[in-house]
Amino acid sequence: MIESAQTHARRYQEVRAYTYELAEPLSTEDQCIQSMADASPTKWHMAHTSWFFETLLLKPHLPGYQAFDAAFAYLFNSYYEALGPRHPRPQRGLLTRPKLDEVIAYRRHVDEAMQRLLAQSDAKLVAEIGPLVELGLNHEQQHQELILTDILHAFSCNPLLPAYQAGLAPAQPSARGAMEWLDGPTGAVGIGYAGSGFAYDNETPRHKVLLHPYQISDRLVRCGEYAAFIADGGYQRPELWLSDGWATVQREGWRAPLYWYAPDEIPLERARVEGSWQVFGLAGLQPMAPEAPVTQLSFYEAAAYAEWAGARLPTEFEWEAAWALPGMREMTCHAWQWTRSSYDPYPGFKPLAGAVGEYNGKFMVGQLVLRGGSVATPSGHTRPSYRNFFPPAARWQFSGVRLAR
Amino acid sequence: MIESAQTHARRYQEVRAYTYELAEPLSTEDQCIQSMADASPTKWHMAHTSWFFETLLLKPHLPGYQAFDAAFAYLFNSYYEALGPRHPRPQRGLLTRPKLDEVIAYRRHVDEAMQRLLAQSDAKLVAEIGPLVELGLNHEQQHQELILTDILHAFSCNPLLPAYQAGLAPAQPSARGAMEWLDGPTGAVGIGYAGSGFAYDNETPRHKVLLHPYQISDRLVRCGEYAAFIADGGYQRPELWLSDGWATVQREGWRAPLYWYAPDEIPLERARVEGSWQVFGLAGLQPMAPEAPVTQLSFYEAAAYAEWAGARLPTEFEWEAAWALPGMREMTCHAWQWTRSSYDPYPGFKPLAGAVGEYNGKFMVGQLVLRGGSVATPSGHTRPSYRNFFPPAARWQFSGVRLAR
Amino acid sequence: MIESAQTHARRYQEVRAYTYELAEPLSTEDQCIQSMADASPTKWHMAHTSWFFETLLLKPHLPGYQAFDAAFAYLFNSYYEALGPRHPRPQRGLLTRPKLDEVIAYRRHVDEAMQRLLAQSDAKLVAEIGPLVELGLNHEQQHQELILTDILHAFSCNPLLPAYQAGLAPAQPSARGAMEWLDGPTGAVGIGYAGSGFAYDNETPRHKVLLHPYQISDRLVRCGEYAAFIADGGYQRPELWLSDGWATVQREGWRAPLYWYAPDEIPLERARVEGSWQVFGLAGLQPMAPEAPVTQLSFYEAAAYAEWAGARLPTEFEWEAAWALPGMREMTCHAWQWTRSSYDPYPGFKPLAGAVGEYNGKFMVGQLVLRGGSVATPSGHTRPSYRNFFPPAARWQFSGVRLAR
Amino acid sequence: MIESAQTHARRYQEVRAYTYELAEPLSTEDQCIQSMADASPTKWHMAHTSWFFETLLLKPHLPGYQAFDAAFAYLFNSYYEALGPRHPRPQRGLLTRPKLDEVIAYRRHVDEAMQRLLAQSDAKLVAEIGPLVELGLNHEQQHQELILTDILHAFSCNPLLPAYQAGLAPAQPSARGAMEWLDGPTGAVGIGYAGSGFAYDNETPRHKVLLHPYQISDRLVRCGEYAAFIADGGYQRPELWLSDGWATVQREGWRAPLYWYAPDEIPLERARVEGSWQVFGLAGLQPMAPEAPVTQLSFYEAAAYAEWAGARLPTEFEWEAAWALPGMREMTCHAWQWTRSSYDPYPGFKPLAGAVGEYNGKFMVGQLVLRGGSVATPSGHTRPSYRNFFPPAARWQFSGVRLAR
Repeated sequence: MIESAQTHARRYQEVRAYTYELAEPLSTEDQCIQSMADASPTKWHMAHTSWFFETLLLKPHLPGYQAFDAAFAYLFNSYYEALGPRHPRPQRGLLTRPKLDEVIAYRRHVDEAMQRLLAQSDAKLVAEIGPLVELGLNHEQQHQELILTDILHAFSCNPLLPAYQAGLAPAQPSARGAMEWLDGPTGAVGIGYAGSGFAYDNETPRHKVLLHPYQISDRLVRCGEYAAFIADGGYQRPELWLSDGWATVQREGWRAPLYWYAPDEIPLERARVEGSWQVFGLAGLQPMAPEAPVTQLSFYEAAAYAEWAGARLPTEFEWEAAWALPGMREMTCHAWQWTRSSYDPYPGFKPLAGAVGEYNGKFMVGQLVLRGGSVATPSGHTRPSYRNFFPPAARWQFSGVRLAR
Repeated sequence: MIESAQTHARRYQEVRAYTYELAEPLSTEDQCIQSMADASPTKWHMAHTSWFFETLLLKPHLPGYQAFDAAFAYLFNSYYEALGPRHPRPQRGLLTRPKLDEVIAYRRHVDEAMQRLLAQSDAKLVAEIGPLVELGLNHEQQHQELILTDILHAFSCNPLLPAYQAGLAPAQPSARGAMEWLDGPTGAVGIGYAGSGFAYDNETPRHKVLLHPYQISDRLVRCGEYAAFIADGGYQRPELWLSDGWATVQREGWRAPLYWYAPDEIPLERARVEGSWQVFGLAGLQPMAPEAPVTQLSFYEAAAYAEWAGARLPTEFEWEAAWALPGMREMTCHAWQWTRSSYDPYPGFKPLAGAVGEYNGKFMVGQLVLRGGSVATPSGHTRPSYRNFFPPAARWQFSGVRLAR
Repeated sequence: MIESAQTHARRYQEVRAYTYELAEPLSTEDQCIQSMADASPTKWHMAHTSWFFETLLLKPHLPGYQAFDAAFAYLFNSYYEALGPRHPRPQRGLLTRPKLDEVIAYRRHVDEAMQRLLAQSDAKLVAEIGPLVELGLNHEQQHQELILTDILHAFSCNPLLPAYQAGLAPAQPSARGAMEWLDGPTGAVGIGYAGSGFAYDNETPRHKVLLHPYQISDRLVRCGEYAAFIADGGYQRPELWLSDGWATVQREGWRAPLYWYAPDEIPLERARVEGSWQVFGLAGLQPMAPEAPVTQLSFYEAAAYAEWAGARLPTEFEWEAAWALPGMREMTCHAWQWTRSSYDPYPGFKPLAGAVGEYNGKFMVGQLVLRGGSVATPSGHTRPSYRNFFPPAARWQFSGVRLAR
Repeated sequence: MIESAQTHARRYQEVRAYTYELAEPLSTEDQCIQSMADASPTKWHMAHTSWFFETLLLKPHLPGYQAFDAAFAYLFNSYYEALGPRHPRPQRGLLTRPKLDEVIAYRRHVDEAMQRLLAQSDAKLVAEIGPLVELGLNHEQQHQELILTDILHAFSCNPLLPAYQAGLAPAQPSARGAMEWLDGPTGAVGIGYAGSGFAYDNETPRHKVLLHPYQISDRLVRCGEYAAFIADGGYQRPELWLSDGWATVQREGWRAPLYWYAPDEIPLERARVEGSWQVFGLAGLQPMAPEAPVTQLSFYEAAAYAEWAGARLPTEFEWEAAWALPGMREMTCHAWQWTRSSYDPYPGFKPLAGAVGEYNGKFMVGQLVLRGGSVATPSGHTRPSYRNFFPPAARWQFSGVRLAR
């Protein structure tokens, strides 16, 4: 095996292994449910990420590769129109078959073949397939984050409010104390990825953007601060909200972040804990921790909070330019940070060729950019130029707020 | 143990054991899913039927009884308003916890306590609780039928179309050949239950109904006959349908019974079988069997078919009066039979006292009566006076057609 | 003109003229709106009733008849599948064209031709078309009632709460004082129409029904009595409601009859009147009158009230049999009376031949029978055997309650 | 009257008068209907624009002003949360009262008072209220455009397909022949309004944006070109569409622009015209004119067309910078032009103070910017910096496509 193939192979093993680690606290039943159309079962994530390698690497590049099961091309395609029809997204939770152990056998089948493919690749082939392997691994890491956010949503629908991992310590704030405003870089700044490592197509091409003077906060907004917004009538004051946001608040009856409960909202006595606000997370229901970064916010809530605080959300360009400012904290490990930027293509953006061109480009309307990374993001997955994106009403991610002005 | 208590205890064991038998072909995952709001997971059926005994017999009548888990009163109450708030019906599939083995432990806990209760009951107590035990067992039998119809619906949503039990022989028609018209009894006939065994409150009081001359068919409508209705444009001819039925046909795109597929409607090649119509059932996908009774029909379809055939559906009274006619066949073991009777209370109907008063009475509007029994009905569960009921658009039961004129 | 043709012609003029009388208090704009899918604009009612005569009498029977406008066959067919495609019901309010005066010209065109048809009919033709003319006039009378109930609904959606006719006196109760229970006839009683006058097909064939002993109240339930039900928590107590009814109460937020408002529910101060309950009716908003029969109730509410009052609703057979009891009051001029009978076909029921066969028969599922007549029913329109029908949640009619036990 | 007040007064009269001109071809009934939640009745537009002047100018600034009707503050507030509760938007079509002539009396009342206010204003007051008067007039002009697009939508729902103005000539293309690509300005260009006339807050502050090299087409896409896209399977090829766009095409069954009909889609024979495509517009149904600019497109369709044509949509900055290029045509009088820019705030954007701060800012999420102007835009209403905005699925405007690359 040539050296770079060895690197790919080793990294492949590490990333793939971590998926099992995440599924470890979950029962077979847990891994099969889907609590809303936007979420998927753990088992489906496990199969879909394997389908990605099988479809984009093994079938075209490994001579003699035998697909594990022809039906999986239909069952585990997510949204790739170029790759044929697929099982409807809202019905992924109905796939009790294939069973979990069949899906694990599928993963092993793909893993073994991937190792074989890498082992027999010469330098030319590695150069060709290396970027796709990297894409597949980054893809798997994105689904690793979704495994956590999706099961958390499912558990939040169970009146028993089970903990994903009871002892899990919550994200620690980087430091206590008041927020500081940092002056951001101005003028023509470079935006987007231009390095030699992996990056998604949506981070390119690198280009210059004119930034006007601004300040950005050195840390994320805390739960205690957000509780003050609620106590000040934040969810009852339309003047703080964007029009669509206010309509959503009214229609959905929002009165706090997604997993914040007042005691009377928890039907089973045994599930309740102390505190006027109880927050559900991977460690189960916990008293609201005033110093923890607030998460599970929609863009609408993030923007309303910023308005209430006399500030605004940073644009994604301001955020990226401020990445390396001295004093900057909590950029990547606590919560994704909603920006005031719609998810539009960069000037000169070209999607990847082939089916993977559907990876990012076709979603570039109606969504907002989030930057950073969260407690659920696999270590090393993000970059300063990384662009995450969700619709403005999405609340089931570890998404929080950093202010600008 | 006094003798009648022994009888109850023995029957209790038999009925409860049959639930496990039905679940036997199903994996843990299979037992957790819910494919629509009207259906429930097998695991939920198992727990709910136990909750029924716990709530209505053990808690009030077994001194010192310790509930298995206080939360189950909330999780497994189906629709009894008198017994407090409950988990929303459409979210039963999200209950990955309690796990299946916890639910089985719950069943054992209840079983053991029920045996204890019966063992220590004197004649007076047996007289008091006997009817409730019987109600609980009949209740369990109804859920046994639902276990089958609900998992069948769930499997029909899986493109793999898995078989509940691959080798299962389909219901055999009682005899081949042409349908015969039998003359029904006329005049004032007795309707409803008046025996000394178990019957539901909705079968009482027994009363007289005037029947006008009619004929009723000696057997159920066959799949082959129904296919002729389809081939004759049955689903395209509004004049055959009730107004609500036609609107449903249009809105839902119905063009055959629920589990009938044309080959191009089955996405996975490996799931297909021979035949212009393929019918999904407990034995998986099979070529349509022209001599088998047609099932999985809504009332609307049953009525449209009857119209097309120049006949009508019998009233529930005509059906009941015709029970013992010489030559009558296929009354209870093939398919529930839609009648032309709305599910209204009998004259002088009184629901049972207490929470079990919600068992039948509160559903007496907007539904149609079905009579008979199906391949999925536990043996011995039905009677001539038995009144099953479903809304007119319901199609996931083993529901078919017998004609009258 | 032969005598019976003269009779038809005179009655035709009277009935048709009354439609204009009803429209008189309405502006052109008023006559064009549709406030929900179940209601229709006045203008549409005017055109549709004319279309009925044009389609079923003039086109087939008046030689040389020229249709007023070929497009009207599409625009003003209500639900007759046999008569071709039609404008979607929920979009009737979008028909600003044809203008009101064109619709009135259409009416005149039809009226003139109808008089011509009757004038030139010999006895044989009169015998043939007479029943259709009568059907058309009874049809128009039904739409006359709908003109009132539909405009009342539309006005109830206008925050100004305009009065249809400001000075209109409300229906007067027949007599004050306590309700009396009357003993109903029992045994085999004749049900349905068997006279020589006009009746709908759904009232036939006359047949015998066995009635068991019952009592029926001599008058309708009063608003004051219904207010006591509300005050006693009627809308918060599930045990009083049928299951579908309770689900509707919760989903729709019902807390009183359709047009009852608490003062804080009326947005415009100038629209409010005195009283803890304000009731909107044809005379505008008025203080609730405790002695007036309660109306604008759904079947669900009628049944819940009866349950609360320790009684039940009469069956349609009990109602019809009790028609002529000494002491019986308020049978036809105050409010339609929900019965506990689903709208099923009578034994031996046959719809009329041809397109008019769709008049009644195809609606015989999912609806409940109402008997009697209301303040909005044209004088002379109903009979003891008259069967009105609406779905159980319908509330915009003048529908009230008579009790039985 | 001081001179600038005279100018305001004269312009007020002109703009207000044009509203009547637009309503002139419409009957009273026409002016009352609302065909979807996004559209409003003409009468409502007439009243709402008057409410704007009454609320923001007369009540605060004209001493002794008497409101025409206190209820109108509730009935005709559109979406200003700061100005209190309001009539629900989807129910504007139910307001048959106030009658049209009352609304016209309301307009006259407001007009008279506005003239009085301007006549008695000194220079200081004119300086204060002048911008609000201008805002009110520009607001009225926006509603003038909506009067046309909304009635066109309403008429399109009427099977008679009535013409707003039968003889109206369609927009003429500026010149025939092939499209030319023009080189756009690059580098740091100034964007936004900085003049001394009227502009909306969303066009400010003027700021610099870096533009990368691009080309922009000199004219709009033609109907004939768009027909070629359809003929080439444009509505069946997911690879051309954004993901949300493709989902919309499937869900809504789109297969051409909003008002394009194939002959078999028109139910009434008399409404049909020649041609394989028939296009409904202000002049009624017409054969598709290949040289006319295509309109009534959603953003999704515009973007899919651009993809098919091997191009893309311009950003709003590219569009604005290209405004004065030699050879540039059809910028403001044919169709609004969808840009590839989400409707985000400009750097340093501040909404106006007070209730009018809700005019633009609160809609800055989930919408796309359109630039230019259409056949329905009042003359002189737009500017190079003008930012129109609609959600990506909106199709009832005169919205078309200009390409970039």
